[in-house]
Amino acid sequence: MNLRFYNARVLTMEENKDIFLGEVWVQNERITYVGAAKEVSDIKKVAWDREVDAKGNVLMPGFKNAHTHSGMTALRSFADDLPLSEWLEKQVFPIEAKMSDEDVYELTRLAVMEYLTSGITAIFDMYLSPDMIAKACEDTGMRVVQTSGINKFGPTLAVLEERYLKLNGTSPLTSFRLGFHAEYTCSKELLEQVSALAHKYKAPIFTHNSETREEVAGCIERYGMTPTAFLDSLGMFEYGGGGYHCVYLTDDDIAIFKKRNMTVVTNPGSNTKLASGVAPIQKFLDAGLNIAIGTDGPASNNCLDMFREMFLVTGLAKLEAKDASAVDAIQVLKMATTGGAVAMGLTECDVLAEGKLADIIMIDLHQPNMQPLNNIAKNIVYSGSKQNIKMTMIHGKVLYENYEYHIGVNPEEIYQKVNEIIKRLKG
Amino acid sequence: MNLRFYNARVLTMEENKDIFLGEVWVQNERITYVGAAKEVSDIKKVAWDREVDAKGNVLMPGFKNAHTHSGMTALRSFADDLPLSEWLEKQVFPIEAKMSDEDVYELTRLAVMEYLTSGITAIFDMYLSPDMIAKACEDTGMRVVQTSGINKFGPTLAVLEERYLKLNGTSPLTSFRLGFHAEYTCSKELLEQVSALAHKYKAPIFTHNSETREEVAGCIERYGMTPTAFLDSLGMFEYGGGGYHCVYLTDDDIAIFKKRNMTVVTNPGSNTKLASGVAPIQKFLDAGLNIAIGTDGPASNNCLDMFREMFLVTGLAKLEAKDASAVDAIQVLKMATTGGAVAMGLTECDVLAEGKLADIIMIDLHQPNMQPLNNIAKNIVYSGSKQNIKMTMIHGKVLYENYEYHIGVNPEEIYQKVNEIIKRLKG
Repeated sequence: MNLRFYNARVLTMEENKDIFLGEVWVQNERITYVGAAKEVSDIKKVAWDREVDAKGNVLMPGFKNAHTHSGMTALRSFADDLPLSEWLEKQVFPIEAKMSDEDVYELTRLAVMEYLTSGITAIFDMYLSPDMIAKACEDTGMRVVQTSGINKFGPTLAVLEERYLKLNGTSPLTSFRLGFHAEYTCSKELLEQVSALAHKYKAPIFTHNSETREEVAGCIERYGMTPTAFLDSLGMFEYGGGGYHCVYLTDDDIAIFKKRNMTVVTNPGSNTKLASGVAPIQKFLDAGLNIAIGTDGPASNNCLDMFREMFLVTGLAKLEAKDASAVDAIQVLKMATTGGAVAMGLTECDVLAEGKLADIIMIDLHQPNMQPLNNIAKNIVYSGSKQNIKMTMIHGKVLYENYEYHIGVNPEEIYQKVNEIIKRLKG
Repeated sequence: MNLRFYNARVLTMEENKDIFLGEVWVQNERITYVGAAKEVSDIKKVAWDREVDAKGNVLMPGFKNAHTHSGMTALRSFADDLPLSEWLEKQVFPIEAKMSDEDVYELTRLAVMEYLTSGITAIFDMYLSPDMIAKACEDTGMRVVQTSGINKFGPTLAVLEERYLKLNGTSPLTSFRLGFHAEYTCSKELLEQVSALAHKYKAPIFTHNSETREEVAGCIERYGMTPTAFLDSLGMFEYGGGGYHCVYLTDDDIAIFKKRNMTVVTNPGSNTKLASGVAPIQKFLDAGLNIAIGTDGPASNNCLDMFREMFLVTGLAKLEAKDASAVDAIQVLKMATTGGAVAMGLTECDVLAEGKLADIIMIDLHQPNMQPLNNIAKNIVYSGSKQNIKMTMIHGKVLYENYEYHIGVNPEEIYQKVNEIIKRLKG
């Protein structure tokens, strides 16, 4: 497929490159041109399958959702208004214990639909039944990087290693990174084994880290150290990695993150709704950490919307700092695109440039919340919404356009199935 | 026009009434039936202009945006990332000084479009050129309650009184309530005059109140009292009224609000983005105050989206209280509908019931962020978005449906004009 987008405002997300009026060409899964309007003679050399007048709308790299649990769509609005520990143990775990592989497949497809509406072109997913998550993403066309949520209840380390080897490279859309659920759900022995695996494969490690005050206090009680310091003392982050949430990182923790070249994945929607707290984003920026943004799962957030997250990243940082100039819009856009790509190992689709994989979104400026065009980056972060997503393309394929899905399944079929699933799981 | 909606999930927002499957009839501007599915023989008695299969989607009263400055659309993304005082004095006032009546007309029409996308069916607007605001709302079909932003720079008290008399009753869509900008922009003499007007007309009074710490400290320095206590000491609220923002109300202030039967209008998006602080919503609820929600103007927020505001109302309250159970979804929906209606004097269009004015929205559940249907009220507040607004009806007229506007003007014409306006104002 040869696709040409012209008359677009192009926001490549490369460093120090301003938005410009031009065009983007895509051949199969790759971007073949990004730049000013081409000469007619050049354009005529290509046999286009489709030429799209972008009508001045924005083309930019898709958002990377750097932390989620897609299969938790079943639990959206099911057990709200509870603190994290009670929510997890009394509501989430009993339902999850009854979930089948097929359930996870359908629930993931539902999540994929929602990601597409929000311009999310890749997800960093931690959930049950990784084979089925990979299949759901391959079948719909979503790019997924999975990580393991191994903990004391399962799976075994052997299974984790098997998944790491098996789920990397089976499809250009799917990959798998090492990880574990959290310090507080793992024995020290298990954590040492995970660390050994990181060393064996020289691989980064990802985990929930310092999401709540209680989690940090518990770790200090158990080991006399914060989760970050304790895990680092096991050699866990010798090859980098990152932490999800990171609400309560200390200055020493931040120094470890910097030293180990680790990513903070912030999840403000979830941290807000579960009353966990506000991550110190400005401190992370000051320390020069790589920062990414995740929605977390739909049972805690409850939506999978990068626009909500982006506003919360900057808004909560402004509130915390009592400073309206904290964390400006372009910094937030970097977190939502290139920052996530670094964490997820997706540097092949981080920016719009020749040779990169074509994970591209079009943002509709012909809507009232985007007018007037005083500052487009600020419009996207401060007043943008899912409704502005005019197109979501992953790996060169248009999966969502003008509010319609091209994912090989009728949305109504998915809605019906997920309602049947939650009815059965609750019963 | 006779309109029949059937196969709908009806959320009337009446007290203690659960959502039910049924239908809603509208004749001209009034609701003529709300209830279970009607008999075919009854249905056939009416000559319907249109019968709409709601396909299980939600019908509910439109949202009331209880504080905004519509004409500030010009300044969206123009002067972000500044503290309130600097933002207001160095960026906003110089631009506003150059705005013409015609500018306000166009800028208000742009805002109306955005309100419609978010299911907002009435606005409580404080801005320049009230005649043009009324005209813009009448011409597009928006319901507007205006209030005065009188301050030491203008207009005169005589003009305020003239507007109060003139702008009430000229159109069924428009009305006007007494108000002033804020304690800190008015002399004591002017405030006494406004209070005298409230007594003359036995009318409630609305104003910005305790938006920032500095505002409260300044008032205490000037008069030895908080803004609420000082204004009350002038007899300002003998006939009720309300305060916009109310971030820093003290317990004594809250007692005054309760005694005077006043409404708190909370504006969490604006308070977040300007780093003003978080209003103590749970305290207001505990005290039994009427609470409404406003977007504030698009220069401070920057979007006019009730869904963002609703999530922030509950989310920030949860964070403040460190309690995930604080301020649940149905309470938020009440603030966004009936709470606003009380403040704005719109009890004729507060709920869905026979005889009420037909200000109705349809919320699309056939979208991934609304599935599965575990709890529809929670879905709306925690994961709902503008994209779920399938229809916005005001005064019996469908003004927005399936992402298209029926407001008597081509959207592109408005976009072009507002870009010309801001270019001229900046120049």
